[in-house]
Amino acid sequence: MKKCDKFVVNALGRKVPTIVNGQEMVAFKGLRQHRPTGRKYAPQIPSCIDYPDDGNKTVATLAEALKKCGLKDGMTIGTHHHLRDGDMVSNTIFDIAHDMGVKDLVWFPSASFPCNDPMIKYLEDGTINRIEGSMNGPLGKFATYGGMKGCAVLRSHGGRVQSIQDGEVHIDIAVIAAPTADAFGNANALNGKSACGILGYSLADYMYADKVIVVTDNLIPFPCMPMQVQGNYVDYVVVVDQIGNPEKIVSGTTQLTRSPDRLLLAEWTAQFCDEAGLLRDGCGIQSGAGGTSLAVGIYFEQMLKERGQKARFAFGGSTKYLVRMLEDGVLDYILDAQAFDLEAVRSARENPNHIDLSVLQAYNYHSKGNYTSMTDIMILGATEIDMNFNGNVVTHSDGLLLHGIGGWQNCLHAKTVIIPIPLFRDRIPVLVDEVTTVCGPGELIDVIVTERGIAINPKRTDLIEKMKGSSLPIKTIQELKAEAEAICGKPDKPKFTDEAVAVIKWVDGTIIDTVWKLEK
Amino acid sequence: MKKCDKFVVNALGRKVPTIVNGQEMVAFKGLRQHRPTGRKYAPQIPSCIDYPDDGNKTVATLAEALKKCGLKDGMTIGTHHHLRDGDMVSNTIFDIAHDMGVKDLVWFPSASFPCNDPMIKYLEDGTINRIEGSMNGPLGKFATYGGMKGCAVLRSHGGRVQSIQDGEVHIDIAVIAAPTADAFGNANALNGKSACGILGYSLADYMYADKVIVVTDNLIPFPCMPMQVQGNYVDYVVVVDQIGNPEKIVSGTTQLTRSPDRLLLAEWTAQFCDEAGLLRDGCGIQSGAGGTSLAVGIYFEQMLKERGQKARFAFGGSTKYLVRMLEDGVLDYILDAQAFDLEAVRSARENPNHIDLSVLQAYNYHSKGNYTSMTDIMILGATEIDMNFNGNVVTHSDGLLLHGIGGWQNCLHAKTVIIPIPLFRDRIPVLVDEVTTVCGPGELIDVIVTERGIAINPKRTDLIEKMKGSSLPIKTIQELKAEAEAICGKPDKPKFTDEAVAVIKWVDGTIIDTVWKLEK
Repeated sequence: MKKCDKFVVNALGRKVPTIVNGQEMVAFKGLRQHRPTGRKYAPQIPSCIDYPDDGNKTVATLAEALKKCGLKDGMTIGTHHHLRDGDMVSNTIFDIAHDMGVKDLVWFPSASFPCNDPMIKYLEDGTINRIEGSMNGPLGKFATYGGMKGCAVLRSHGGRVQSIQDGEVHIDIAVIAAPTADAFGNANALNGKSACGILGYSLADYMYADKVIVVTDNLIPFPCMPMQVQGNYVDYVVVVDQIGNPEKIVSGTTQLTRSPDRLLLAEWTAQFCDEAGLLRDGCGIQSGAGGTSLAVGIYFEQMLKERGQKARFAFGGSTKYLVRMLEDGVLDYILDAQAFDLEAVRSARENPNHIDLSVLQAYNYHSKGNYTSMTDIMILGATEIDMNFNGNVVTHSDGLLLHGIGGWQNCLHAKTVIIPIPLFRDRIPVLVDEVTTVCGPGELIDVIVTERGIAINPKRTDLIEKMKGSSLPIKTIQELKAEAEAICGKPDKPKFTDEAVAVIKWVDGTIIDTVWKLEK
Repeated sequence: MKKCDKFVVNALGRKVPTIVNGQEMVAFKGLRQHRPTGRKYAPQIPSCIDYPDDGNKTVATLAEALKKCGLKDGMTIGTHHHLRDGDMVSNTIFDIAHDMGVKDLVWFPSASFPCNDPMIKYLEDGTINRIEGSMNGPLGKFATYGGMKGCAVLRSHGGRVQSIQDGEVHIDIAVIAAPTADAFGNANALNGKSACGILGYSLADYMYADKVIVVTDNLIPFPCMPMQVQGNYVDYVVVVDQIGNPEKIVSGTTQLTRSPDRLLLAEWTAQFCDEAGLLRDGCGIQSGAGGTSLAVGIYFEQMLKERGQKARFAFGGSTKYLVRMLEDGVLDYILDAQAFDLEAVRSARENPNHIDLSVLQAYNYHSKGNYTSMTDIMILGATEIDMNFNGNVVTHSDGLLLHGIGGWQNCLHAKTVIIPIPLFRDRIPVLVDEVTTVCGPGELIDVIVTERGIAINPKRTDLIEKMKGSSLPIKTIQELKAEAEAICGKPDKPKFTDEAVAVIKWVDGTIIDTVWKLEK
């Protein structure tokens, strides 16, 4: 089977396959152009007949649970990434599969981390056919040079749950690492030595997978409440010594940037939001956990405090800075699918207004509305932005696939999307004629803030009007690019082969771009 | 179309139809004998394209919302009963339908109350074809005398959500009365003038219905949290002056019995549980909100306190007595699908261990396990019990259908089911040769406690063994029946026609019995 076939040119002028890993797919048609037909995926109807009356679903080992689930060649295994770089469960699944001689698995994680690099050996020996999910560093490099047997499929967090809900990806076995669970399969991430706060990426997995295994290192008496995982969907529970390395689960290293350049970006971003009237009483904000984003958040907090105003909600990965806003009364609600540090874990446990929320609610484009489009201010990053404001977050200008999409595409739907980025990184300009990989159409990106000036998307005439007379250095994106190139020059373009190694999905399930194999 | 057709005799010897309202159904096969095939119901895939970016789904009136949902002849309308006898929304739906000239609707409530009696006129004029749900008093009488055009289908709370999940009942429009909501459709019952605490009967409705309308009298800014209803499933939000009559929503009248006979039943029940070793540290209990049940709960509380023990969880409708146990530290968790009084509403709002739980988790037999089978002690009622311990909860010995099943069938799956009932009511014995309507097989009913003695199901040899030497008056069920008949005699049997007016579903979706039309 060819990895990819039947290439077409999509609405953004990108060449994309319409058959990927043997499955038909739709090319990107433009924003709001693809209306899904058909019905949600319908799992088999289970019956209490087949589950123990006393609710005890424990089995001795993960290997036994996988065997009971009928693990075999070609199956798709869903996992979540809440244990981040401390995950000790995902790799074990494939160690077991390898020992069983199972081949051609599809690994479908909500994200992968450096701790998952050992999976390269299973991609090489055929235990794993491909990863459908984010790849970073070595795994990404391995894929870019064509190392995977199958074609990678990269989806946003929202796109991942959309693909599950719509039946495009059918999870045969979902394995959910849970910091606390009972024998029935109810589980949460609030307590236990591996507490990671929230399990917001696992809801679609356990709702739609054929078989569901909960793996925990902290079994408590029924009922494990609050239940972030509902035991009614769970087949087996496995107790192990350790599901993760606590030091790496929540690194505790969400740190404010100390770089003067990054602080300037943050300051200008905040000032821009202030002058443009975006930061208002009752607004919804999202600013991520990167160093610059955190600094923007701090400025927001100060500005709101000074004015005696409050933000209504902040969505997204939670950090100690968001928790401080909540506890200081500058923010009504943290809506949270993922906790980034120990303070956030504590808050998820203690604060009733720190709400556990699945990406199925917030980000799934195939539902009756998303949270992101109700968010006023969205602070995001990018590896490249082009002259049409199209953004790239997965590849670098050298062509290497080094990042996942995360929630980036979903977040683009906010009312105002602002991207504070340095004008160049390691003397490589961030503003380019054309991005290496389009991950999001420029129509959705409103403002680029760099250390040498701020560019507003010409489509946002309202923002341009409001910023007239501002002391901020408002420039065109072309001017900013020219300044960068005057300093760094233009780097050579990477040399690609004509082999597709990954496709990038848009939030509606269509293919927005292709990642091509790099020449060695 | 015949209401019912193709009658067979089921595993309990009952004559039941296998075609009901034109739909094929399965006759009861015995406990744990029916294994479902097929897949869960798969709703259409929606898209954010069709919903407002700003999340504002409000429309001016319920009539407008129903029109936008395409209300038409033959549709099925789902509602919940959390507003109990104060519900001001359900009737309005059918007033509107009547004004629109819509006919042959199926009303699919999670329960009906005396306030819904006005629906009789719409059953008479053909606006409503039938009710698939509980009927009490006048509505039940109306059905028993053959007044409904279609055949009623009575399901337990768990059976109702099973039928939705499995696609047996397809809800065209779910209307969810919500004491607090935002414009996106997130909703809860914790706050507002119509606060009823919990919306545990609505989850399956909004997950599986084609269209979902939230009706509220307390609209708050997004996000309405915690969300007992998820706005991502909601199409329209309607704001009205009043969704219910607060005095009747939570009556505040969950009162302990003062009848000496009932108090004796409660005392013996508690003593039985104590002597049989059922009440233990860490046990799960459910005892309902009836006067006798509440008294049993009070005895449990005292006994646990004296021993320095705690119950682990209590499931079911919450009352001030359960709240006191929780707040006094005699109970770890209230797992709650329905609040019965204002103290329970307050507790649901304030106590993190008072958990909002859908019947989809607790009671749905077609899931990977139920909560009821993990419950140690279950205290239930009945209108009749026969010599095989079969129980009836829907009809009286006069043949009138006067009650719904509620969670009764689901609760029969507990480890020990105890039914404290007076030996006769209005000189009609409760113990009979054969129940008028079988709602639950005797295999699942363990103990009958009456004011003249206690009968243990012969199948529970363990309990019989444990109670040897007890001071409690342990008798056979035949002895108890003889005592009752010696006092009251045997009442005449009601005269039925051969027309089926209602069928009773078992928890697995099969038909366990038929309710026959009474001769006038």
